[in-house]
Amino acid sequence: MTVYPASAAASTLDLPVIRHDVDAVLEEFLRHKVAAAADSFLPDEVPRALEVFVFAGGKRLRPLLCVIGWHAVQDHGVTSAVVRAGAALEMFHAFALIHDDLMDRSDTRRGRPTVHRALADRHRASRAPGDSDRVGASAAILVGDLALAWSDELLHTAGLSPSQLAAVLPVVDMMRTEVMYGQYLDLVTTGRFTADVGAALRVIRLKTAKYTCERPLHIGALLGGGGPEVLAACTAFALPLGEAFQLRDDLLGAYGSVGTTGKSASDDFRDGKQTVLLALALQRADDSQQRMLRKLIGNPDLDDDGAAGVREILTATGARQEVERMIRARFARALHALDEASFTPSATAALRRLAHTATERTA
Amino acid sequence: MTVYPASAAASTLDLPVIRHDVDAVLEEFLRHKVAAAADSFLPDEVPRALEVFVFAGGKRLRPLLCVIGWHAVQDHGVTSAVVRAGAALEMFHAFALIHDDLMDRSDTRRGRPTVHRALADRHRASRAPGDSDRVGASAAILVGDLALAWSDELLHTAGLSPSQLAAVLPVVDMMRTEVMYGQYLDLVTTGRFTADVGAALRVIRLKTAKYTCERPLHIGALLGGGGPEVLAACTAFALPLGEAFQLRDDLLGAYGSVGTTGKSASDDFRDGKQTVLLALALQRADDSQQRMLRKLIGNPDLDDDGAAGVREILTATGARQEVERMIRARFARALHALDEASFTPSATAALRRLAHTATERTA
Repeated sequence: MTVYPASAAASTLDLPVIRHDVDAVLEEFLRHKVAAAADSFLPDEVPRALEVFVFAGGKRLRPLLCVIGWHAVQDHGVTSAVVRAGAALEMFHAFALIHDDLMDRSDTRRGRPTVHRALADRHRASRAPGDSDRVGASAAILVGDLALAWSDELLHTAGLSPSQLAAVLPVVDMMRTEVMYGQYLDLVTTGRFTADVGAALRVIRLKTAKYTCERPLHIGALLGGGGPEVLAACTAFALPLGEAFQLRDDLLGAYGSVGTTGKSASDDFRDGKQTVLLALALQRADDSQQRMLRKLIGNPDLDDDGAAGVREILTATGARQEVERMIRARFARALHALDEASFTPSATAALRRLAHTATERTA
Repeated sequence: MTVYPASAAASTLDLPVIRHDVDAVLEEFLRHKVAAAADSFLPDEVPRALEVFVFAGGKRLRPLLCVIGWHAVQDHGVTSAVVRAGAALEMFHAFALIHDDLMDRSDTRRGRPTVHRALADRHRASRAPGDSDRVGASAAILVGDLALAWSDELLHTAGLSPSQLAAVLPVVDMMRTEVMYGQYLDLVTTGRFTADVGAALRVIRLKTAKYTCERPLHIGALLGGGGPEVLAACTAFALPLGEAFQLRDDLLGAYGSVGTTGKSASDDFRDGKQTVLLALALQRADDSQQRMLRKLIGNPDLDDDGAAGVREILTATGARQEVERMIRARFARALHALDEASFTPSATAALRRLAHTATERTA
């Protein structure tokens, strides 16, 4: 196992360097898949589509948290095996987003066509027979499935010891079940139009707080040999942070612009997505605002004026302000948990910075 | 680890008993998932949908081959860990079929509505807002994803030793990549209308021969401690058998009846599926038969008369007979490989019986 030079890592964690190392692993893995496909007369557009998708953007939040989780326990340079485990989480995330975009019928992600759109366009350009949109959808299901299988392969070939592998596999299994259930809940509640803040928070907990924050930290901490106390401290920090992160995401989804977020600001309204923001607005809306929201939310023909109308009500009811308050409260709870935890100073500092970025971001 | 009573297992392998044991593992696992969902306020229709799907039928071919692979090396009763690894393969197969049915837009499987149809019907009956077919499709993507994640969970919790786990994970990874690529090739070649028998055989090799026969045997043999020689012998038997199995399947798809196969006999024609049978017919068809096939294959409005017309050409060109000949040749090659292999007598006998059943079946 390669051990990275400890250098500055002991005192401050260099997040851009970790990001770069994770990307290098992903790039090498996918380049190898392209070569392997060519050797076996297999279509290399699958690994190439993943390459384009993975390197179009992304914050690499899960790999970063995985590596920081390791540092929470270990006070010296990170091994390449941990970086590779982090890369496996990013590949899993690619799977989740590709299937997600297909289910949401999103046209763009990270400012580019989504995978099902790109593959439909490819089919259309090839003038092959068949319905291009249908072929694109099917191909995206398969590209997602392969990303999931390859995230396993990255983990299995990471160079972990048998006991490390045995420690993380159950957490990986839990993480998957959680995020898939979260996605399922999201699917069956979308368009239901309820003021049930609790239900919206349940989806956030599964889809983001546990999946994006808690489990990556757990996986890293377990790789570093962390015990139950460390895992509990990770949870105490990660759950409120993850909720804050998603609440910020919902605000950006409602008030952000395509230019900064890479996706249309009206998509969530048009799809009738059950966010905490919307549930709060529904709780507080007067009769005419209720009628207005029911007319606009989930309306496939919603235009810019309609979206502006929704935004006005979200603000006027105080829902926006309440979500900002919830973000602040969760942010404070996360930082408090960090103070209570006995992580290494470098991990604590990195998590504090990450918490700021995640809750204050504009994209 | 529970060791099954060796009893008769040493001399003859009781396939119905193995099938029953595999089903008991799947049943207990899914019952546990239903209970776990209820405990966490999660929708239990996901494990219930899988339950219905898994127990509606299926030959349990992959679990059987996994257990027989173990017996090829070991001459005493099988451990519960191997049965559970076999159950993991069946859960993976559920994933593959659920996504497959969605991509093929099949209405029935095993004589019942496919998962996306069943979930669309459920949504329609609940009178919830939204497009029921779209919700059904999205839900089926997620149910398939969960089946894939749960097949891992079954394997990870099978009670394998760390060295057993380390031995099988790379093969599981290869198996997944192979079958997903096979499915992708199938997707992009469907409707292309070519006489390329080699391309059709390549899909068969990935989607069936390796996935259904070779890899399950490998996994079982590795769990039993088999080395490279045993694996090579498994391959020599499994690849021709798997090809024969799929060629039989294509014949049943063309000439079988809904009553015996559980799916409509015209689906393959209507979808323009690139089978070896069709490629051979295209090679041998005269001009008028060519025109006829081009008109009928891939035609979404194909009726019973049209399907009968296709069948007539498949027979008249000798394609059907040629496929029967290919099945016989592969069957003989598989049996020859079995004679050359140094498997235990009980495994050899079981594989011989299975080879007969797989190539001579009518459903």
